[in-house]
Amino acid sequence: MAGVKGAAGCVEELRRERAGCSFNMEELTNILDGGKDITTRRREIEDLMCGDPAFKDEVPTEYLSHEDRYTTEVRKVCHLARKMAQHNISSRELGITSVTNLLRDGNPLGLHQSMFTNALLGLASPEQQRRWGRLAQNNTIIGTYAQTEMGHGTFIRGLETTATYDPKTEEFILHSPTITATKWWPGGMGKTCNAAIVMAQLHTQDECRGPHPFFVQLRDLDTHHTLPGITLGEIGPRLGLNSQDNGYLRFDHYRIPRTNLLMRHSQVLQDGTYIKPIHTKLSYGTMIVTRVGIAVLCVKKLACAVTIATRYSAVRHQSELVPGEPEPQILEYQTQQYKLLPHIASVYALILSARSVASVHGKVTADISRGNVDFLPELHTLSSGIKAVSAQDSTQGVETCRLACGGHGYMASSRLPSLYTSATSCITLEGENTVLLLQVARYLIKSYRAAVKGKPVLPSVSYLAASPPVHHTPELSNKALVEAFRTSSASLVRETEANLQRLCDMGQNYPHAWNSCSVALVRCGELHTRYYICERFLSSVESVAVSEGTKGILVCLCRLYLVYHVTLNQGHFLRSGTLSAADLSTLEEEMSDLLARLRKQAVPLVDAFDIRDELLASTLGAWDGRVYERLYDEALKSPLNKTDVPKAYYKYLRPLIKASL
Amino acid sequence: MAGVKGAAGCVEELRRERAGCSFNMEELTNILDGGKDITTRRREIEDLMCGDPAFKDEVPTEYLSHEDRYTTEVRKVCHLARKMAQHNISSRELGITSVTNLLRDGNPLGLHQSMFTNALLGLASPEQQRRWGRLAQNNTIIGTYAQTEMGHGTFIRGLETTATYDPKTEEFILHSPTITATKWWPGGMGKTCNAAIVMAQLHTQDECRGPHPFFVQLRDLDTHHTLPGITLGEIGPRLGLNSQDNGYLRFDHYRIPRTNLLMRHSQVLQDGTYIKPIHTKLSYGTMIVTRVGIAVLCVKKLACAVTIATRYSAVRHQSELVPGEPEPQILEYQTQQYKLLPHIASVYALILSARSVASVHGKVTADISRGNVDFLPELHTLSSGIKAVSAQDSTQGVETCRLACGGHGYMASSRLPSLYTSATSCITLEGENTVLLLQVARYLIKSYRAAVKGKPVLPSVSYLAASPPVHHTPELSNKALVEAFRTSSASLVRETEANLQRLCDMGQNYPHAWNSCSVALVRCGELHTRYYICERFLSSVESVAVSEGTKGILVCLCRLYLVYHVTLNQGHFLRSGTLSAADLSTLEEEMSDLLARLRKQAVPLVDAFDIRDELLASTLGAWDGRVYERLYDEALKSPLNKTDVPKAYYKYLRPLIKASL
Repeated sequence: MAGVKGAAGCVEELRRERAGCSFNMEELTNILDGGKDITTRRREIEDLMCGDPAFKDEVPTEYLSHEDRYTTEVRKVCHLARKMAQHNISSRELGITSVTNLLRDGNPLGLHQSMFTNALLGLASPEQQRRWGRLAQNNTIIGTYAQTEMGHGTFIRGLETTATYDPKTEEFILHSPTITATKWWPGGMGKTCNAAIVMAQLHTQDECRGPHPFFVQLRDLDTHHTLPGITLGEIGPRLGLNSQDNGYLRFDHYRIPRTNLLMRHSQVLQDGTYIKPIHTKLSYGTMIVTRVGIAVLCVKKLACAVTIATRYSAVRHQSELVPGEPEPQILEYQTQQYKLLPHIASVYALILSARSVASVHGKVTADISRGNVDFLPELHTLSSGIKAVSAQDSTQGVETCRLACGGHGYMASSRLPSLYTSATSCITLEGENTVLLLQVARYLIKSYRAAVKGKPVLPSVSYLAASPPVHHTPELSNKALVEAFRTSSASLVRETEANLQRLCDMGQNYPHAWNSCSVALVRCGELHTRYYICERFLSSVESVAVSEGTKGILVCLCRLYLVYHVTLNQGHFLRSGTLSAADLSTLEEEMSDLLARLRKQAVPLVDAFDIRDELLASTLGAWDGRVYERLYDEALKSPLNKTDVPKAYYKYLRPLIKASL
Repeated sequence: MAGVKGAAGCVEELRRERAGCSFNMEELTNILDGGKDITTRRREIEDLMCGDPAFKDEVPTEYLSHEDRYTTEVRKVCHLARKMAQHNISSRELGITSVTNLLRDGNPLGLHQSMFTNALLGLASPEQQRRWGRLAQNNTIIGTYAQTEMGHGTFIRGLETTATYDPKTEEFILHSPTITATKWWPGGMGKTCNAAIVMAQLHTQDECRGPHPFFVQLRDLDTHHTLPGITLGEIGPRLGLNSQDNGYLRFDHYRIPRTNLLMRHSQVLQDGTYIKPIHTKLSYGTMIVTRVGIAVLCVKKLACAVTIATRYSAVRHQSELVPGEPEPQILEYQTQQYKLLPHIASVYALILSARSVASVHGKVTADISRGNVDFLPELHTLSSGIKAVSAQDSTQGVETCRLACGGHGYMASSRLPSLYTSATSCITLEGENTVLLLQVARYLIKSYRAAVKGKPVLPSVSYLAASPPVHHTPELSNKALVEAFRTSSASLVRETEANLQRLCDMGQNYPHAWNSCSVALVRCGELHTRYYICERFLSSVESVAVSEGTKGILVCLCRLYLVYHVTLNQGHFLRSGTLSAADLSTLEEEMSDLLARLRKQAVPLVDAFDIRDELLASTLGAWDGRVYERLYDEALKSPLNKTDVPKAYYKYLRPLIKASL
């Protein structure tokens, strides 16, 4: 707990909560970080950055104009980039920390440091990497990733921007033929970046070869002026992330050299001959990394939110539990426990399953380099499901935590509003959740049909065609609950496939039948992913080597997670016959006990997330629990409070008040 | 559709949707408004206000600093107040319109025009009303309602602010003994208001008589300076509603005349003698009106959101439904229909049930004036439940609509972000939702226990003790589904009461047993309220006198609402045995048909909400459907787009980019 330990003495309520800790906090921190070494390195970087006064805001960003917010964050992010270079900290290393929390409302260099860099690594040829890699690393080139258009998001084949090859000059001509072809959304593209990887429909030898990635310089590297033939700007204010100058981009017959097509997978020769990639699915790799990254990003926001709400709930006293007795900590209320504790469990469940997908990805990448792409579709499905469910659970969790803080959770100074507005962006970006879950469902239906016909399917979906148990199991062990999830998921897939077939048999064509079943298909995608998460959480907890106390709390969290999600999805279990009404009553009673037990460890559990005050940046969630003093001190910073009577009074209110006097 | 009809010709997609309208749009509009006359008056006022260029923003508020946002909205709200006076428009009449949508981020005079005025009417004696009423109406006094404290929200008895009577001077001494006693949150209190109704613990003759309302002047009526003994300020930025200068207030032995205690119900005589109110529940009246008002306010936001998302979904084309065919309108996707259509139905369900509660309130108020307060607890329960469920459903609905617009729903110019941030505030304000639902549950358990013992209970809860049906009904008519809701609600209350009793029998005291059951109790409160809403919706639709086409669409919407909420709550129906797994499959198939049928009427249905473009204020939702042009035009307004190269480049980016050159 480096850094945190240095905080001033905490309020009595939190001191008492911490004194009752039943586990080794450091072990939990290591599990979340992914290892002792990573915890050490993370703290090293966080210490370095948090100690630097240059990251402090004189005035909280929420008071500033849109333009001033942007300017402020650019200052911080440039300082961060310089400091990373000085201290040899890579973007990947920064990613294990929560240092970007020092930025309050989005990161103008965020895409430069993530998707742009990853796309260069994944899509550029070795020669191209040599050409642009170091320039990008040195921040001479600042890039973004320009795929989405005003009229085209998730469906990449619908992109309208064209890149037409002209063999005479050996150039591609980039063009935006319509208003809906305008590139729209890329972070940092409005004002910050001088380059982008642009996805455009490649036309050569009078044929369209589909969307391909191009390296495009957007601004003059010396003057930062937009280059002729390009229109660039900022798309305007958003629900959140207002400092990252999401941009728009239009091309008017803008020419780039042939060698700017990123040529790792496909190529265009000088004469315009198109050379196809060896495997069409090879470009999945970057997407998988991006989606797992988004999943982890969201969960970290949930960890912040639940830390804030849990500490506040230990400090806040309200209402009567027993008439006549003093107002209890609101953490005593079961309804409050129910709002918070399952989300503490969620943090573990989601982090551990995202890490599991990442480790499968590592293995699959090695296969790919040997030309084996068999596992890619499965991995693609898993990463889609994990991204969708993590984004959804984390966003809802953050919002539940915010609302659990009552009115004060609505205050910007609680930090909960910006955690929400940033987390929720993950639901629609980089693959809209519903579309992703339908992709999972497509894989499930395909695999189920194959398995039924006796064809081989990959291990993660082989359960779909296993024969359903005739009677539900009377046992409600962890293993039994995970099995119940599996059986219910298989049952839902089976039922949905039967419906799909029925509609086809009635004469609907497959695409329309698919559409008519799609609400159910989304549920198939969700339930399968939930089953995967539950299975991974349980197996990680069972295999982890930690002290007894730590194991005990992990088992308890895992149990809560299982019981919580079984009761939330009770309809599926009842309809598939895997659990009875009596089982659910039993599980609800058990949940009541679990909440009461975990309530005692709630504060130590969020302490184990090890989020420093500077990175939590919350009046309600600081380590010392001095909630009310902080709220008051923050309010005093309001520019409106610099004078007793506001300007608006003299201009507008006074004439109104005086009118009738 | 006055005003709307005047808009420029709409895009082909919307023209086609509108051409297929199967009902009389004006009849639906009248139903939502509550009558033909009200529609007429609403349009009259909206025409007057929307035509006034003074309400236009030169720069969208999202670009401004916190202080400038406030100043801008004060300008607009003062203009509105003057215009209302000129044209004899009352606050009540303004409430039937959506004119406050012209304010983009909260209303600094909002509490003055609602709770302050209502509280004066409900709590002041006739003499006091004469003294302050006209001054308030003339805006000479601008007031707010100061109840919530930094450390005390829903639990009014916990308030710390004291009002101690001093018979020597015949004054009350107002004091804030601690930091948590600071009044915190009242809208308009920071900078705008010069008075407030303050709730404080009344102490007289050495006894505390509980919280009472006082009229308190806060600022000098001539100079607007804060009066000595008072500390006032703005609490700082929030998730939304940033222009309404929510304030804080502290008293340092601040003296007010005895006659400033609002004396309609309780009194303090010159010598300090305290006179109790005749009925302790009389003050419920104001709360009931406020809560029903909040319910309607939220639903209006939902109506805006679903109008925006539905029109956008008709204009937006994306992805492939049938491979090789052109990209369809996204409204063709069942998943999109499922996200939008149930919320169109929600608008009717929630408006009609809120109106039903309001009309019961009208009758009960007449009873009260005759001294009969028997129905108050029931009405209080209904209004609590309706507020909680409306706030929750509307907020979730707005967010679903926002997410259904993909990335563009995240843009401020879509208006969806501010609809969300304002709607969600209703979940925690004026009675936090969980607390309200537990109050409903308390009434249900109490009534159930009374009914079981054969004691008389009020009609709305007499169903709780009726004997449960042994077998579920094979019929799935509307009536049967409402009955299934009733039976499931009764079953849940019964089961929860049994658990409560079991815990007590095991030795827990009642308050702790209550707490251990409170997650289930919240569900009891929700399910009972949902049953009430379903019942009211169905009975309103059955009795309404409209043309056949209009009746048809209302019946279809009501059916969708019932089926949607039955399937969402399927666990309760399965566990109580009211519906079988096969019933649910049948209902899911029916839902699929209902979505397909209602999809064809989706655009005319939201057109019938009759929300003018000026009040919708959305790039995605305007009547003409020119989505992309509007998005682009709005982006051009960004101050960052006034120059090609931003200031931040010269100050911060250039040194970073040049460092390695």
